[in-house]
Amino acid sequence: MLSADCDATVLMRAVTFQAPMQVRVEERREPELLAGDDAIVRIEATGICGSDLHIYRGRVKIAPGFTIGHELVGTVVAAGDAVTRVAEGDRVLGCFHTACGTCFFCLRGHYHKCDQMRTFGHGAALGDLPGTQAELALVPHANLTLRRVPDSLSNDVALFAGDVMGTGYHAVVNSGVTPGDSVAVLGLGPVGLCAVQVARASGAGPVVAIDSVPERLEIARAFGATPVHLSEQQPREQVKRLTGGRGVDVAIDAVGHPDALDLAIRLVRKAGTVGAIGVYAEPQQVHMGLVWIKALTLKSGHANVIAHVDRVLGMLEAGTLDPSPLISAHMPLDDAAEAYRRYDRHEALKIVLTP
Amino acid sequence: MLSADCDATVLMRAVTFQAPMQVRVEERREPELLAGDDAIVRIEATGICGSDLHIYRGRVKIAPGFTIGHELVGTVVAAGDAVTRVAEGDRVLGCFHTACGTCFFCLRGHYHKCDQMRTFGHGAALGDLPGTQAELALVPHANLTLRRVPDSLSNDVALFAGDVMGTGYHAVVNSGVTPGDSVAVLGLGPVGLCAVQVARASGAGPVVAIDSVPERLEIARAFGATPVHLSEQQPREQVKRLTGGRGVDVAIDAVGHPDALDLAIRLVRKAGTVGAIGVYAEPQQVHMGLVWIKALTLKSGHANVIAHVDRVLGMLEAGTLDPSPLISAHMPLDDAAEAYRRYDRHEALKIVLTP
Amino acid sequence: MLSADCDATVLMRAVTFQAPMQVRVEERREPELLAGDDAIVRIEATGICGSDLHIYRGRVKIAPGFTIGHELVGTVVAAGDAVTRVAEGDRVLGCFHTACGTCFFCLRGHYHKCDQMRTFGHGAALGDLPGTQAELALVPHANLTLRRVPDSLSNDVALFAGDVMGTGYHAVVNSGVTPGDSVAVLGLGPVGLCAVQVARASGAGPVVAIDSVPERLEIARAFGATPVHLSEQQPREQVKRLTGGRGVDVAIDAVGHPDALDLAIRLVRKAGTVGAIGVYAEPQQVHMGLVWIKALTLKSGHANVIAHVDRVLGMLEAGTLDPSPLISAHMPLDDAAEAYRRYDRHEALKIVLTP
Amino acid sequence: MLSADCDATVLMRAVTFQAPMQVRVEERREPELLAGDDAIVRIEATGICGSDLHIYRGRVKIAPGFTIGHELVGTVVAAGDAVTRVAEGDRVLGCFHTACGTCFFCLRGHYHKCDQMRTFGHGAALGDLPGTQAELALVPHANLTLRRVPDSLSNDVALFAGDVMGTGYHAVVNSGVTPGDSVAVLGLGPVGLCAVQVARASGAGPVVAIDSVPERLEIARAFGATPVHLSEQQPREQVKRLTGGRGVDVAIDAVGHPDALDLAIRLVRKAGTVGAIGVYAEPQQVHMGLVWIKALTLKSGHANVIAHVDRVLGMLEAGTLDPSPLISAHMPLDDAAEAYRRYDRHEALKIVLTP
Repeated sequence: MLSADCDATVLMRAVTFQAPMQVRVEERREPELLAGDDAIVRIEATGICGSDLHIYRGRVKIAPGFTIGHELVGTVVAAGDAVTRVAEGDRVLGCFHTACGTCFFCLRGHYHKCDQMRTFGHGAALGDLPGTQAELALVPHANLTLRRVPDSLSNDVALFAGDVMGTGYHAVVNSGVTPGDSVAVLGLGPVGLCAVQVARASGAGPVVAIDSVPERLEIARAFGATPVHLSEQQPREQVKRLTGGRGVDVAIDAVGHPDALDLAIRLVRKAGTVGAIGVYAEPQQVHMGLVWIKALTLKSGHANVIAHVDRVLGMLEAGTLDPSPLISAHMPLDDAAEAYRRYDRHEALKIVLTP
Repeated sequence: MLSADCDATVLMRAVTFQAPMQVRVEERREPELLAGDDAIVRIEATGICGSDLHIYRGRVKIAPGFTIGHELVGTVVAAGDAVTRVAEGDRVLGCFHTACGTCFFCLRGHYHKCDQMRTFGHGAALGDLPGTQAELALVPHANLTLRRVPDSLSNDVALFAGDVMGTGYHAVVNSGVTPGDSVAVLGLGPVGLCAVQVARASGAGPVVAIDSVPERLEIARAFGATPVHLSEQQPREQVKRLTGGRGVDVAIDAVGHPDALDLAIRLVRKAGTVGAIGVYAEPQQVHMGLVWIKALTLKSGHANVIAHVDRVLGMLEAGTLDPSPLISAHMPLDDAAEAYRRYDRHEALKIVLTP
Repeated sequence: MLSADCDATVLMRAVTFQAPMQVRVEERREPELLAGDDAIVRIEATGICGSDLHIYRGRVKIAPGFTIGHELVGTVVAAGDAVTRVAEGDRVLGCFHTACGTCFFCLRGHYHKCDQMRTFGHGAALGDLPGTQAELALVPHANLTLRRVPDSLSNDVALFAGDVMGTGYHAVVNSGVTPGDSVAVLGLGPVGLCAVQVARASGAGPVVAIDSVPERLEIARAFGATPVHLSEQQPREQVKRLTGGRGVDVAIDAVGHPDALDLAIRLVRKAGTVGAIGVYAEPQQVHMGLVWIKALTLKSGHANVIAHVDRVLGMLEAGTLDPSPLISAHMPLDDAAEAYRRYDRHEALKIVLTP
Repeated sequence: MLSADCDATVLMRAVTFQAPMQVRVEERREPELLAGDDAIVRIEATGICGSDLHIYRGRVKIAPGFTIGHELVGTVVAAGDAVTRVAEGDRVLGCFHTACGTCFFCLRGHYHKCDQMRTFGHGAALGDLPGTQAELALVPHANLTLRRVPDSLSNDVALFAGDVMGTGYHAVVNSGVTPGDSVAVLGLGPVGLCAVQVARASGAGPVVAIDSVPERLEIARAFGATPVHLSEQQPREQVKRLTGGRGVDVAIDAVGHPDALDLAIRLVRKAGTVGAIGVYAEPQQVHMGLVWIKALTLKSGHANVIAHVDRVLGMLEAGTLDPSPLISAHMPLDDAAEAYRRYDRHEALKIVLTP
């Protein structure tokens, strides 16, 4: 184990939140190993994601000056004694959150609900763990959080495994999709489009992809889905037509809005499953009468990416999943402010930043 | 096959809905076999259940004069050619609804969402199938709807298998309770108390039973639960104390009221399951923010009793389940009007009617 | 309902077993409806399958003169009153066996172990149900046994849904393959090749396909698998190389020979699953020491095609499955003797017969 | 963290294997903490178990002088910095093996197949981890291996949670027993009797308990099972009689002998599950023909006690499980030689040793 030199004068660049709609590249002290299962990764690629936008727009509150970002591909430059699954020099990808591997929840495989869970770049409320839009990142519980990147995968593709594609995988597999099932995906942002791709790659069909942005509907079509425009077409009629009048076996709400959840509840067949992967934060109206009379199962929460990352990597390596079409731009880390502005204007599905 | 004599002058007594708060025993034509898998049962015991009360109070609309009731134990007096699982002369119990056994939903085991499902005694909206509070009942799809009663079981006990105890079983087993799990049951009517008993008999512990009626809390205690008074004690504190601060693995809402669902969502641990067996009919407030951040699974709908009835009978026969303490009174069918009045005043958990 | 005319002089042609290595097209009386849920299908396509070969070679004993064959696509020409899922005039496909839909096993979804199960064309021991290599076939329990063929599917493709592809689907899905899992398929006959295709279409990867016939290995490669020659390459080394030394998550024995089962047990990782879809009839050596120390799950038995047929049809319709490359030849029913000889010489993977 | 004083002169007593049929209490150096997640436990109770007998009789080879034993209850006297789930001074119980919590297998919940698994007291082949029949034990990966003992549980009862009762729990729950299922348990040693108790406590019934030792059959009867003498009664006839001729839903082989596995295969119903928890080490005859035609699932391997220990503790605390009747004797650690002789003569089901 080589501990990173921690002289206070050793500084690195990092993207920091300053105020709503304002991020800045600043100098920060380089991280040091703190625990035996920590690793430090030199970042080679990091992304901007929809969750970052919640911070950028001030909806998720974090302290000014906090380093943001939660996606990472890079090279391990230091690792504690207890780190066994990766080693210095390995090219690795990271999951967007950490888990301890030993609490009640981890022992049941619920890594996303770990009692000590920390999310990169989300401020004090989510574990006070500096983000990955920086030259270096400290990665706790590296045995769970990091994975070696197979040689055949580019940084761009690997970047998705521990975050957006892992979330698409969760949306589909955690909802119990069985090969041959019909699926509707509501909302074709990066997560929704990844869910479409995973659904198709997992044998689902038809996969009905619903949104109101023509470009996104086109990507969904290219991924093998049947695109349906939310307002110009009639999702309920289309779904009926494609499923013998029954509704889809599984409906995935990749939006996180009451209208999307309501539509999902209406599109799914009796005894079907609604996977609500979109973020909810408030009490709201839910048509429990429909949920009850249709005998639905509703599954919610963010993705359990640590549980899925090996299998997602397997699918990326096998080529059955390929998120490349979602990458809108590559930009240097120093241009993060411009990248965030562009992402905020919905001009990109995924921007990859390179330190 | 012996067809029942269907001379128009052959009449039987039946309990009929007349108007809200008004039922009457009237004469009705005896039923005849209509399909090859029909059976006719001479009723020896039938019950009044919470669902009957929805009809009695006018909340569920049915036509005046319709025969009500959906629980039955009796003897098969006629059976069509395709009836193979029971025979004339057999003492049988009935499930509260029918299923065809061949539609999309039945083939996946979702008998409760059968495309041709009919519920006894619930009027035109639920299949126009006359009820079982009568001397005789026509039982469609008898191979699925009826089961032989093992000799060791009384009519009283068997009466629960296809309705209230089957619903308690569904609430527990469909929610994925594993031996050693902690469970909360909200609402200690007959279904909630049966859920308590099934949870204990299935290895759950602690089982926290929540209500505000002391007598019901006492029965729950006798069934092995930890009773908690809804308002005089603090359910959230009690559950925390009993589960190391985590919350229960499974919370069962046996009420069907937004407050119960909200409490269930708060009592359950992260990544746990809420089984909403209580009836919902309307849109309502649900704290989706909690559902999401806790990554919950919510399962809803009425019970799939046809899927469960063999195993419920097995448990009744083994003595691991025994609903006898829930029976408040036996009354003759002719006193149905008085029985309904008594049940409406919450003076009984279960009244058994005998034609 | 139009009952087929049953004058004894109405005859049809049918392929009959005569003696080992000898089949003949003979005249047989046309079938009649016997039960309310029977249908009669005019056969438009039927196949020769590996199971037929067991009969042809005399390993499975049936009476001389019995009509053989168990695959069917055709048009419903008569249907009993209780037949609701298909109607006269429908183009339909058949499952290779029947199930009652109401026994203990059917109610748990184990249609393949139905207490009244009958297999087409397999003689008295398996239900005495004449086969489908004929102009007409009587189909009992038609609601479960038959499905409408979607317009977009050819007879050739539909023929696989209720038999060979349904078996490949069972081998994969019943073994619990999850998207991203690694799979080995041992034996690349029609069932093995279908299992390869289902595995890939369900998101598995790598899929290692093992056999010693180069042509079959090539088809597997075209289906997306990594082909491995059983004797010229080293399956255990190849699997190790492809799975980080661990072994595959699921190994499918599509052979039915002790050596195949033994290799499957060795190729699978600890806590993995072996799906033994190949036919076993005798006691034999199994390395239980390995099964135990590796903590394996072994699942066996023929496919539960009735449970799977809707989803298999969905995948065929979506184009994620396509068995066309397995069809070696089309021949008229009258040339059945020649077709069997050719199949017996392993000159074909699938021969489609047309009456 | 207080490291145990590790002066070489600090010695403790430990039971060591010497030669087949010969164990001896010797002095051994006290253990020291080696890794951050190690703990050291002062043993207050340890047991002799059937696995110890394999070592004692020389069937499992270990080096002379190695400390044996794998059951433990005691008090934590030292714990590394990374130990979070227990603390110095806690009364704890141990699982019989360790797991890392981070490898491929642990991340899927297969703790019993951990790539770094070590079993207490089983010599070099199973991880070179000194046993627990000693005054002190070093416990690696203490967050997974140890649990606090609830105040209400005696040392005797807690001793079972991480070994014998955890194994009984695994046998039942891992075999998919659902409340109301029928179960047969073959072999009524401590594991079989615990499986009987877990099956009953989990809602199974009837539970048929098969052995040829009258005392063990009597304990099974007291645990709620239907005892059947292996040779004096007819297990197959008894099972048929109790299950409507079908066979049990789940058969558990708690013996580890070809005859037991064969009987389990014959007793289970079609599409049922055989849980082979008894130890197998060799290739042997298995009636694969029966396994195939009955479409069985066979699950094998030793128990995944780390996955189960919280729930087993919950059941012990709730009183639904109580292994007390299995304890034949308490003896001081110094009498280990006599204890082993007695256990070897089958004069005890469980002997608790106290240092």
